[in-house]
Amino acid sequence: MKGAVLYGPRDVRFEERPAPKITAPTDAIIRISATCVCGSDLWPYRGANKVEQPTPMGHEYCGIVEEVGSAVRSVRPGQFVIGSFFASDNSCPNCQIGYQSSCQHREFVGTAQAPVLRVPLADGTLVKTSDIPTNDLVPSLLALSDVMGTGWFAADAANVKPGSTVVVVGDGAVGLLGVLSAQQMGAERIIAMSRHDSRQKLATEFGATDIVTQRGEEGVARIKDLTDGVGADSVLECVGTRESMMQAIQSTRRGGYMSYVGVPHGVELQGEQLFYTHIHLHGGPAPVRRFLPELIERVYGGKINPGKVFDLELPLDQVAEGYRAMDERRAIKTLLRPS
Amino acid sequence: MKGAVLYGPRDVRFEERPAPKITAPTDAIIRISATCVCGSDLWPYRGANKVEQPTPMGHEYCGIVEEVGSAVRSVRPGQFVIGSFFASDNSCPNCQIGYQSSCQHREFVGTAQAPVLRVPLADGTLVKTSDIPTNDLVPSLLALSDVMGTGWFAADAANVKPGSTVVVVGDGAVGLLGVLSAQQMGAERIIAMSRHDSRQKLATEFGATDIVTQRGEEGVARIKDLTDGVGADSVLECVGTRESMMQAIQSTRRGGYMSYVGVPHGVELQGEQLFYTHIHLHGGPAPVRRFLPELIERVYGGKINPGKVFDLELPLDQVAEGYRAMDERRAIKTLLRPS
Repeated sequence: MKGAVLYGPRDVRFEERPAPKITAPTDAIIRISATCVCGSDLWPYRGANKVEQPTPMGHEYCGIVEEVGSAVRSVRPGQFVIGSFFASDNSCPNCQIGYQSSCQHREFVGTAQAPVLRVPLADGTLVKTSDIPTNDLVPSLLALSDVMGTGWFAADAANVKPGSTVVVVGDGAVGLLGVLSAQQMGAERIIAMSRHDSRQKLATEFGATDIVTQRGEEGVARIKDLTDGVGADSVLECVGTRESMMQAIQSTRRGGYMSYVGVPHGVELQGEQLFYTHIHLHGGPAPVRRFLPELIERVYGGKINPGKVFDLELPLDQVAEGYRAMDERRAIKTLLRPS
Repeated sequence: MKGAVLYGPRDVRFEERPAPKITAPTDAIIRISATCVCGSDLWPYRGANKVEQPTPMGHEYCGIVEEVGSAVRSVRPGQFVIGSFFASDNSCPNCQIGYQSSCQHREFVGTAQAPVLRVPLADGTLVKTSDIPTNDLVPSLLALSDVMGTGWFAADAANVKPGSTVVVVGDGAVGLLGVLSAQQMGAERIIAMSRHDSRQKLATEFGATDIVTQRGEEGVARIKDLTDGVGADSVLECVGTRESMMQAIQSTRRGGYMSYVGVPHGVELQGEQLFYTHIHLHGGPAPVRRFLPELIERVYGGKINPGKVFDLELPLDQVAEGYRAMDERRAIKTLLRPS
């Protein structure tokens, strides 16, 4: 089979890889219906994370179960399933309190830009849908595998409640779906920080009530203007740079909540500075598994359409162009379909 | 009148200072029943914070109202009152959500090691007791002014609930009262990190179920041993050094809560490291005012006796010895009574 392999900065190849096989009785093999390129794939693609060796890529997936190991009980061949980028047993103490992405037995699922995928800990990781979804639902179901689950976690971790004033820093797919999540959770005011027309438009469609185009100090000042000088109840940091973290911290009201869901790169927080902000801080790799059942219901019920973040769809063999389009910000997010 | 003035490292003098007067219609003047030396007073005393000029000291106080400004409505001369180290209007947006120590009009009350004190924003700051307390209650009521309120905030910010497993880092007065607070909130297991006999004893009296004497990596390993390898639900960081923060972060379970209430000194947190811990982080200067009414009730009702942290009582004119005893760890906390 052929899949995506990253060789180094801006060098993604679609090439022969060994077809995955069941290696543990808890594994499942699934045939990918759709996969995609993640904002976090751009870190190594852009050289911000070093690529030590040719590395298969992709951690977002949904598809049809082809085969399961002898110990798998909850899914069977022929079913449509969605999983998260961290396989989890869903039963250890960390999973039990809803942090499946910190599962004591977690394994990263990192070879999903391919037609076939091995998923470890299938019972704890995969969630099946009630039927085989129609083709138009697939993008939204795929989005649940990471970006929608991550946006939802960002809103949850930032304590978004009915009536909240929310700021979303970052207009990538996760930020946009953070807007959608805040809207679903009943936020009264949702301020999206974005300077790109197409992203502003989608943010508004997802429920943003205000758009702030300024960044840094100016951006913070604008947020303060919009919130009677107080700052926002909840701020979702969906980027992971030093600048975006600072902007988020300074936009949060005293006693407010800030979440961060993008892997921080080069971020150092000064204890004393943080101390006087009086904010609640929570984040980390989103425990997508916690939210999958509820989010699948919302997609099936027509309440959310997170698949709208895919503004470019390509056959899997054009994966390299999928990366390029996102790198050059021509696309928000690229969906890939194996042929 | 004479009061305490810090001139430089280990140089506290008891010397003539101008007697405070009403300067704004919202002020009150109180005659101090008791004041004390705070762990945070030791930072400048030890030279960790620079002392730019001779500085009056003291931010913990309770006493009898002597005089009030023309706008003061809630307290009157003759009443016994307690206030926090930050005066607050108790009505701004930050106060309204319970963060009075981030009041938009806050003023630090920093001249309390004296027989008479001016308290700004008296209506928002001072809480009166139902009567003039007997002398034996005064130490516990004084403790509410900072250390007990701060320990309570530490437990509250670390989400201590009935049944929680709690770790308290720091065996100063705040840490010990963090233990007491966790006990009051129904924690099932309270692990105090302490290597000093007298402090271990008081921690146990306040409700600690386990004592850990190890520090650093070893301390963290011991906490993991005691919690099935998972870490604690709630960790209260009551010191403010880099070492204590790291110990606290690493002792917290994934998805758990860590609070920090000591002003951080030289603490830098790496974003990426924090990200993967999956902890909730909250802290800052304790909004003592939020908790005063409830804590006064608990003292009057005999439920808590936070005054036990005062293991040295001196007349105010011996304030320099009070600092020395704490600096040399001969005393946990020094209570001072004006003569």
